[in-house]
Amino acid sequence: MSDTTRSPGGGESERTSGPPGPSAALPALDPDQLRVLGSLGQEWGRVSGDPGVWRRALPVDPDLGSFPARHELRPAPIVRLVSVTGLGGTQHEAEAAEEADVPPTRMGRAGYRLRRVLLGAPLKNTALIHERMRKLVALPVLSADILSSVAYAPEAMLAVLILGGAAGLAFTVPIAAAIVFMMVAVAVSYRQTIRAYPHGGGSYIVASENLGRRPGLVAAAGLMTDYILTVAVSVAAGVAAITSAIPALAPATVPMGVAVIAILLAGNLRGIRQAGVLFAAPTYAFIAAMFALIIVGLIQGPGGSAHPPPPSPHAQAAQGVGVLLVMRAFASGSTAMTGMEAISNAVPAFKSPEWRNARTTLTWMVGILVALFAGLIALIQLTGVVPGAAHASGSGHETVLSQLARLTFGTGWMYVFTQAATAAVLLLAANTAYNDFPRVLSLMARDNHAPRVFLRLGDRLAFSNGIILLSVVAAVIFAAFGGVTTSLIPLYAVGVFLAFTLSQSGMVVHWWRLRGAHWRKSLAFNAVGASLSAIVLLTAGIAKFTEGAWVAVFIVGLQVVLALRVRRHYDSVGAALRLHPHAMELPRRTICSPSTRDALARIEEDNHRTVEENEEMPSEIHHLSVVPIETVDLASMRALAYAASLQQPVLALHLSPSEEEAERFRGYWTQWGDHLPLEVVVSPYRAMVAPLVNYIEALHRQRRDLTITVIIPEVIARHWWHNLLHDRLAARLRRALHHLPKIVITTVPFHV
Amino acid sequence: MSDTTRSPGGGESERTSGPPGPSAALPALDPDQLRVLGSLGQEWGRVSGDPGVWRRALPVDPDLGSFPARHELRPAPIVRLVSVTGLGGTQHEAEAAEEADVPPTRMGRAGYRLRRVLLGAPLKNTALIHERMRKLVALPVLSADILSSVAYAPEAMLAVLILGGAAGLAFTVPIAAAIVFMMVAVAVSYRQTIRAYPHGGGSYIVASENLGRRPGLVAAAGLMTDYILTVAVSVAAGVAAITSAIPALAPATVPMGVAVIAILLAGNLRGIRQAGVLFAAPTYAFIAAMFALIIVGLIQGPGGSAHPPPPSPHAQAAQGVGVLLVMRAFASGSTAMTGMEAISNAVPAFKSPEWRNARTTLTWMVGILVALFAGLIALIQLTGVVPGAAHASGSGHETVLSQLARLTFGTGWMYVFTQAATAAVLLLAANTAYNDFPRVLSLMARDNHAPRVFLRLGDRLAFSNGIILLSVVAAVIFAAFGGVTTSLIPLYAVGVFLAFTLSQSGMVVHWWRLRGAHWRKSLAFNAVGASLSAIVLLTAGIAKFTEGAWVAVFIVGLQVVLALRVRRHYDSVGAALRLHPHAMELPRRTICSPSTRDALARIEEDNHRTVEENEEMPSEIHHLSVVPIETVDLASMRALAYAASLQQPVLALHLSPSEEEAERFRGYWTQWGDHLPLEVVVSPYRAMVAPLVNYIEALHRQRRDLTITVIIPEVIARHWWHNLLHDRLAARLRRALHHLPKIVITTVPFHV
Repeated sequence: MSDTTRSPGGGESERTSGPPGPSAALPALDPDQLRVLGSLGQEWGRVSGDPGVWRRALPVDPDLGSFPARHELRPAPIVRLVSVTGLGGTQHEAEAAEEADVPPTRMGRAGYRLRRVLLGAPLKNTALIHERMRKLVALPVLSADILSSVAYAPEAMLAVLILGGAAGLAFTVPIAAAIVFMMVAVAVSYRQTIRAYPHGGGSYIVASENLGRRPGLVAAAGLMTDYILTVAVSVAAGVAAITSAIPALAPATVPMGVAVIAILLAGNLRGIRQAGVLFAAPTYAFIAAMFALIIVGLIQGPGGSAHPPPPSPHAQAAQGVGVLLVMRAFASGSTAMTGMEAISNAVPAFKSPEWRNARTTLTWMVGILVALFAGLIALIQLTGVVPGAAHASGSGHETVLSQLARLTFGTGWMYVFTQAATAAVLLLAANTAYNDFPRVLSLMARDNHAPRVFLRLGDRLAFSNGIILLSVVAAVIFAAFGGVTTSLIPLYAVGVFLAFTLSQSGMVVHWWRLRGAHWRKSLAFNAVGASLSAIVLLTAGIAKFTEGAWVAVFIVGLQVVLALRVRRHYDSVGAALRLHPHAMELPRRTICSPSTRDALARIEEDNHRTVEENEEMPSEIHHLSVVPIETVDLASMRALAYAASLQQPVLALHLSPSEEEAERFRGYWTQWGDHLPLEVVVSPYRAMVAPLVNYIEALHRQRRDLTITVIIPEVIARHWWHNLLHDRLAARLRRALHHLPKIVITTVPFHV
Repeated sequence: MSDTTRSPGGGESERTSGPPGPSAALPALDPDQLRVLGSLGQEWGRVSGDPGVWRRALPVDPDLGSFPARHELRPAPIVRLVSVTGLGGTQHEAEAAEEADVPPTRMGRAGYRLRRVLLGAPLKNTALIHERMRKLVALPVLSADILSSVAYAPEAMLAVLILGGAAGLAFTVPIAAAIVFMMVAVAVSYRQTIRAYPHGGGSYIVASENLGRRPGLVAAAGLMTDYILTVAVSVAAGVAAITSAIPALAPATVPMGVAVIAILLAGNLRGIRQAGVLFAAPTYAFIAAMFALIIVGLIQGPGGSAHPPPPSPHAQAAQGVGVLLVMRAFASGSTAMTGMEAISNAVPAFKSPEWRNARTTLTWMVGILVALFAGLIALIQLTGVVPGAAHASGSGHETVLSQLARLTFGTGWMYVFTQAATAAVLLLAANTAYNDFPRVLSLMARDNHAPRVFLRLGDRLAFSNGIILLSVVAAVIFAAFGGVTTSLIPLYAVGVFLAFTLSQSGMVVHWWRLRGAHWRKSLAFNAVGASLSAIVLLTAGIAKFTEGAWVAVFIVGLQVVLALRVRRHYDSVGAALRLHPHAMELPRRTICSPSTRDALARIEEDNHRTVEENEEMPSEIHHLSVVPIETVDLASMRALAYAASLQQPVLALHLSPSEEEAERFRGYWTQWGDHLPLEVVVSPYRAMVAPLVNYIEALHRQRRDLTITVIIPEVIARHWWHNLLHDRLAARLRRALHHLPKIVITTVPFHV
């Protein structure tokens, strides 16, 4: 099957993380198809005797250049005209300028203007190449996701351990140490990936190239689930940082979060270019605030704590410290690693030499991560802060980070700065997902595993549809979980560690296959990374299944099933649309590959209709035009004149509710001169559409080789609300005829 | 203006209350139009030299009779075929049988089956004639509306008077006497109408024929408002009858009422035939129950009252008895007369002699009404029952009728029977509006004052769209007023007395114009009726304006404005669609009436586009086909073949996001053999639709005389959800091209 369609893999060189090349819009024809195309063309020439017979002189100048009065009429939509003297006199290229994109309808124009105000001017394709980042910009932009996770991961870990009381909290340091070890191991593993995939090595690409299509889809599903949850969790944590500082806002958690997602949506539809520079500041501010917090806090020591934290309300509910509790705490803490894959996706966005800059940035990023994570755990141990404490003011809950900052800095400007930087970096983390989610989706769409709308680049070179989808799903999940970070955490780890595991397993296979320089070392690093990720995945999946991980598992599974379904549909459509040698001559041709013939046979079997629609040459098409007319007016007469002017047989069709009316209509026909054959169908049940459709279908059954063109006069009112006053027969008829084979539908407009 | 369109008046003989004749579906051509049609036909013949040249041999048999294998393929949709040997060999008439109405799509078929289960088998047009009623059936069906109003009118009157305390209640008898006088006077007035309009004399017809178009529309608006409120008030009162007997249901008032309206909707979509016989029973039961109540109650006297009614809660709130209070009480009590016009609308539904039977029925009806109304007022005076009493069980309010029945019959079966009959007759009253509202709307639609969809008779010969509109509006108003009868009453009187006043004023003019036998007497009767109705109208409008009458006034005004707007739109469309002599020869022809020329000139002025679309002969149409193709596949090749086969100039159009892709596409074109001119438009902003539309528009501006046929290949998936996976360029392009003049849109389907 795979060779009848676009290949799922493709060369490594095409796998950049940028937008898909032209091949996505116009898939390359394989040599087989090219040969068929050529022979088809020969048949056009052979049938007519003269190959040029079809090239009738055009009554217009197709490159629009010779029409002088154009500018007088209205602002010219086509401003630059490039004549290309390449293949023939009429093969020109008119480059559509920006104004050519302005939709011609009034509603469309209003929407266009609104979009320009919100999103800025459209960008050309060629603008893409400039989107390269220096390391000092790339570090904050790409590491916001992973660094910001220290704002919630330690808290999530502690929130589990505190269920075991003091005995549980005693596990804090060992578990934190295990997580730090994990971080280093996975980072080393990803350094290998960056080297091996300088054009961008996301989990989807690595897993599908090395492990196969299905593991790749599972990795992609895991990643996409992760990105959705990155938005939901980061927004939840960011809102929590704000409500910790201003408890009065706590009741508005859900509306605030949804508003933030809406802002992210609008900002990302504008594209990432401005974002790159603008978004560097919050990450640096956050890093500075965290280091200040850790250093000042550790220097102050426990004595610095002016207000000892209130006893935890959970202390009474202490349960025994079981293996499950430790596993859950470990899984919750591991969410600090989400976002690790960001740099490996974005290698091509670095300045040259891309892979080396990316690796350096990764090392820096993980170094800072480890320092912040370990420092915060130490500070927590020192101060004895526990999560879930009611806010001092009595309303809402205060985050661990807010408690630490309050203990360390008091409530002065440093506290406010810390909270503001935390909220800002979490917003930026959510923004990372807005870059990555649509990119993964577009890669899947390029492989026909996702709807093609996700391939479409918006005016601003952003994958608008993917951005919109992400916003909607994230907002729904955010609202469904009430915007509570700790409720969302159990969903989080499954997707990301699924992707990590598959990606690094893929790298193991990659090194084994290649066996280049240092392959043993790289393979070993990746194997360790894969094993550790798998352990976290299993831990999270088992320990947190009932707490919410099942939602993530379900979402991943659903995505994989959908992706396979989508691919199957595109494959079957692709096979049906594939050029094939002329049907009547199929048996005696050798040009037709066996797979093509198989595909054709399969289509003929399960859809006897399709094979009727196999005319590829003008001479094969046998015409009959049917003109349904309701009454004798200008619109009908014009449709009849149009039909007659095509020089093909025409049948006029009138539907009458009664014999008297039919008689009257025939009278008008005679008065007109009976120039065209007329058929009157009496419909005593007053239905309009169904009898016409059934009649036309019966004509089709009489002569299945005919192509029946139904020419419908359509009165078009100037305003949409006027359409309520007309019976819109044309639209209803078109909808009803849509599913019939070999029925061409033509509407002849009459504007009033 | 009026002579360029269908005349608003029309002959009296056409004004039946039945469905509109065939003229509504196919408006008759006036002699002027017929002459133009003939000369148009002559031009067709003259241009080709041979008048028969357009009649090309058809490749199919249009009457479908000679195709033998038809029955084997699937159940034949056309079962009866009548060959009509009238005007020409190919002019046949195939009568579409019931099965021909079955929609061909799966969704359509499911909807069809559901409709058949809910509504029954469709009825033929010829079934209409059998819907005649005997007097004994007509009386209950047509008088349910007016008789049922005694269930709420006395209560509504008392509810106002009680605000004046005992002094107010003292006005009960004088006001009731005035209302009874009104009833008789208006009834006498309507007897004149029935005699003068044996084909049905609704307020709309009488007012528009005698007073003019605008008064007619005001009357129609008043009537339609009245019908909407009849449904809302009757359902509210019916539900109140039920909740008076079963107070536990009181909280469910609104859902119950909406459910009742839904049942009425479904029942009326089935058509009225079964309803006639079935619905006779409740009215007779109600009449019997009321007479029993009055007679038993009056015999028992005040001593029969076992439980004296509790003192009214309103007694304390007594206000002075002013003129306004009396006026309001009178207006509220006058709602007992709503429904008086039902018989004059329905004269043709009586058995022959229609007008005499209708008059007799009217006399009987008003006699019963007066007896019931007077009897109930007497009983209320005797027992001292007042409205608004809390129910004995403590929840909800009990209606006056329920209190009377409880006092008279106790709580035995006679009480239950009375309440059940009241609820049933109110349901039937609401049903009356379901017959009348769509009828008035269809009459307005026939005069082009309402959207034409209201002309469409459903499968069951009911005006389905009007029935649906009535249900929706009535349900909204019912719910908005919480289903409380007394809140709805102030809205009620304005519409109905507006219609009465205009209708009877129209009759005065009618008699004055005709001056036949007894014209003085008839004129006097109608003048008295009109004056009295006008008094009630003014009373209600002034006294109850702030209580809700303004809503009715607003609705009436809105309807009139909409009706005038609708008519204006249809007039301008009608003028634009009117056949006219060939445009180029317009100046030298005398066949063109001045008004036609004026209309044309006006259109040319305010819409320079329309006059471009004036080709009426095949030879005038100059073709260019444009085929937008996205890629080289079977669907595109078929569209190209189709375009080439029409033997007209063809231009293929490809939109490319980049120069590289454009080059590649040109390569494919060369490989194919360059059989057709190709134009590649580079759209660096990735928009698809807008550049294509703008390019096509530019072609149109180059040569405005060309008819550009845009031939769009369209891949059609088998299931609608598959369309989410395709970019639906065809549909988007069609929408965008829709508004352009002289652009014919053709879709060549390819089913996968």
